[in-house]
Amino acid sequence: MGTYELVEGKARAAKKAAAKLAVISTAVKNKALLAMAQALLDNQEEILKANAEDMENASAKGMRTSMLDRLKLTVARIEGMADGLRQVAGLPDPVGNVVGGNTLANGLTITKIRVPLGVIGIIYEARPNVTADAAGLCLKSGNTVILKGGSEAMESNKAIARVLAHAAETNGMPEGCIQFVDTADRQAVSDLIHMNGLVDVVIPRGGAGLIKMVVMNATVPVIETGSGVCHTFVDASADVEMAVNIAYNAKVQRPSVCNAMETLLVHKDIVERFMPAMLAKYAEAGVEIRGDERVQSMDAAVVPATDEDWSTEYGDLRLSVKIVDSLEEAMEHIAKYSTGHSECIVTQDYANAQVFQKTVDAAAVYVNASTRFTDGNEFGFGAEIGISTQKLHARGPMALPELTSTKYLVNGNGQVRG
Amino acid sequence: MGTYELVEGKARAAKKAAAKLAVISTAVKNKALLAMAQALLDNQEEILKANAEDMENASAKGMRTSMLDRLKLTVARIEGMADGLRQVAGLPDPVGNVVGGNTLANGLTITKIRVPLGVIGIIYEARPNVTADAAGLCLKSGNTVILKGGSEAMESNKAIARVLAHAAETNGMPEGCIQFVDTADRQAVSDLIHMNGLVDVVIPRGGAGLIKMVVMNATVPVIETGSGVCHTFVDASADVEMAVNIAYNAKVQRPSVCNAMETLLVHKDIVERFMPAMLAKYAEAGVEIRGDERVQSMDAAVVPATDEDWSTEYGDLRLSVKIVDSLEEAMEHIAKYSTGHSECIVTQDYANAQVFQKTVDAAAVYVNASTRFTDGNEFGFGAEIGISTQKLHARGPMALPELTSTKYLVNGNGQVRG
Repeated sequence: MGTYELVEGKARAAKKAAAKLAVISTAVKNKALLAMAQALLDNQEEILKANAEDMENASAKGMRTSMLDRLKLTVARIEGMADGLRQVAGLPDPVGNVVGGNTLANGLTITKIRVPLGVIGIIYEARPNVTADAAGLCLKSGNTVILKGGSEAMESNKAIARVLAHAAETNGMPEGCIQFVDTADRQAVSDLIHMNGLVDVVIPRGGAGLIKMVVMNATVPVIETGSGVCHTFVDASADVEMAVNIAYNAKVQRPSVCNAMETLLVHKDIVERFMPAMLAKYAEAGVEIRGDERVQSMDAAVVPATDEDWSTEYGDLRLSVKIVDSLEEAMEHIAKYSTGHSECIVTQDYANAQVFQKTVDAAAVYVNASTRFTDGNEFGFGAEIGISTQKLHARGPMALPELTSTKYLVNGNGQVRG
Repeated sequence: MGTYELVEGKARAAKKAAAKLAVISTAVKNKALLAMAQALLDNQEEILKANAEDMENASAKGMRTSMLDRLKLTVARIEGMADGLRQVAGLPDPVGNVVGGNTLANGLTITKIRVPLGVIGIIYEARPNVTADAAGLCLKSGNTVILKGGSEAMESNKAIARVLAHAAETNGMPEGCIQFVDTADRQAVSDLIHMNGLVDVVIPRGGAGLIKMVVMNATVPVIETGSGVCHTFVDASADVEMAVNIAYNAKVQRPSVCNAMETLLVHKDIVERFMPAMLAKYAEAGVEIRGDERVQSMDAAVVPATDEDWSTEYGDLRLSVKIVDSLEEAMEHIAKYSTGHSECIVTQDYANAQVFQKTVDAAAVYVNASTRFTDGNEFGFGAEIGISTQKLHARGPMALPELTSTKYLVNGNGQVRG
């Protein structure tokens, strides 16, 4: 069987299952999620063995240590996946929620309710835990899922998906509700993103290259996630200690994630009070500074920032820093280089806080807090499948409601149009 | 200047204007909309002259009478466009609406508000009134608009767009907020749907061919609109008179529109009571019936229905009719051939009504009313830019809120992540 036939077969099976899953009760879905969690624990030996195979192959191919760490599964990480599924079982089911409605003059009642999207394709890299996280969120929201993981985690993902699918199907969920694309042929991604009529949406999770490839080639609808060139602007009136804490946390606490800061903008009138303390703290943490001319003049260690620096998501302990003359200059810089993820102003000025939040175009716009909070768990949504950086359908952390569509129920007693 | 440069220039201008328009007050937008309405009336001579040119060209090219009627502008139709703009001015502004939020344990407050999408591309055919309708809805919801109309209406659209843009810009709206793509080069559509980073969404309005072309080729997000193979299922328990009225209205009242019925499904147990009266009424109205074998046996005039008939949106006085043995068979037929627009059951059975509304996957699912009500005005939304038949972002009639995205405002007093 060719790759196209393989992917199409899985998409057809997922669509068939989706019609059944859409009308399954919350109680059945929750029971299945708990069974899936238990199955991961009961089958951890099989999963760890598969993972050991992936680790061996990856080592032999010379994979970097940081990547190897992302690929590695342990008993604790499998327990983490199981906990995640149990948590999703405990969240409210969005399907059937009434989100609006009215009664028309002619007596027709219109009720807008949440319904599943249908079939969701998840295209992801490296971390095998995404297999369980994505399956849990999709199933809870009434969707079937087609999982296409990275080839480096093939055996781990395959084992996890097999365990989850078996537990789901033996606990009331429709056959075929979890599909795993078990081929390393890169063509499979291209096939999946062209399954119009069978796949309702694809969500790529991974590096900028993967996301761009999917966005530029898919004919099925896509939700773009995760790229984050996030800025923090320290305004003239900022509380210096607060600004240092926020800018330090946003860069240093976990630099590899999308809501970490990549560029610090500093108002010229606070430079003298703020920058010495800030640069000392960054130096202590080993942060490499790339700055404009004014920043370079403050510290010999500062590397000149290029235009590429302003638009790069470093994902590590590098930071670009620019001194600006005004709030407007800061907002112009953000408008030019932001990926629309998370942007922050640190200020004590009420009007500036308002203008910044109103003007800056991003999924999350902060006043006086670290951008690191842009996250489904932190926002109180219980879980997330990714952070949308597009404006259509969902923006920011996507939780269960963002994995649904709506339909209108229209009830009458014989109304016809005049 | 090549077509690509022309389209890119307009997209850049629209994006620049979008940043300004996003923060303009509702009062200014409403004033501009009223000025635009007045400008259409004040400049009707110019618009009618341009339309006469289009009509002459179209006649010379042998355009069908029904198409010529769609292209034609009259004083009354220009007044209709002006009325539409005034109506939009009177609708509530969705921008800034708070749609959710909460306060986290650490004291951060999160507020989810509606914001404009940014730049909306509208690709449309034939009717010049779309130029005014789309511009009004986009501007009111804080978006700038790039209009790409059909070449047959080029002069009419160009005149309308010029009048509207001048009125908007001289009444407080940012320069460039209405862009009109004034080239007949078909490449312009292809260029527009690849303007990632400049165009936030494209909405095609027109025939199935146009919509499919845009969906299959665009790299910017698309909202699919309008194709409607709508079904009415007359259940065994239906009130016969009500069923005849609904099925007649759904087919005959305005057969050219997307919410009109294309296929009638009839439960075998009501055939004897329902079909003679129904067929007589259809015959009176000149409806051509294409039926399965059981329907053919009832009337010599019935044409055998092919598989293509079940999936065709006739848009005229043709109707396919099938006798089914059960509710399940009706729902299976609908699942196979529906475009997910509007589906109806006529029944007196409570359980069947519930099952039908829960199971059928469409934007609007009716009990005992004509599918012709699926419409922004009928639903009480005041206006619509189209009817979405996709599940992402918006489904069903799209009004002003559906032309917005959201952003999270996060307010703190120094919170950092631990």
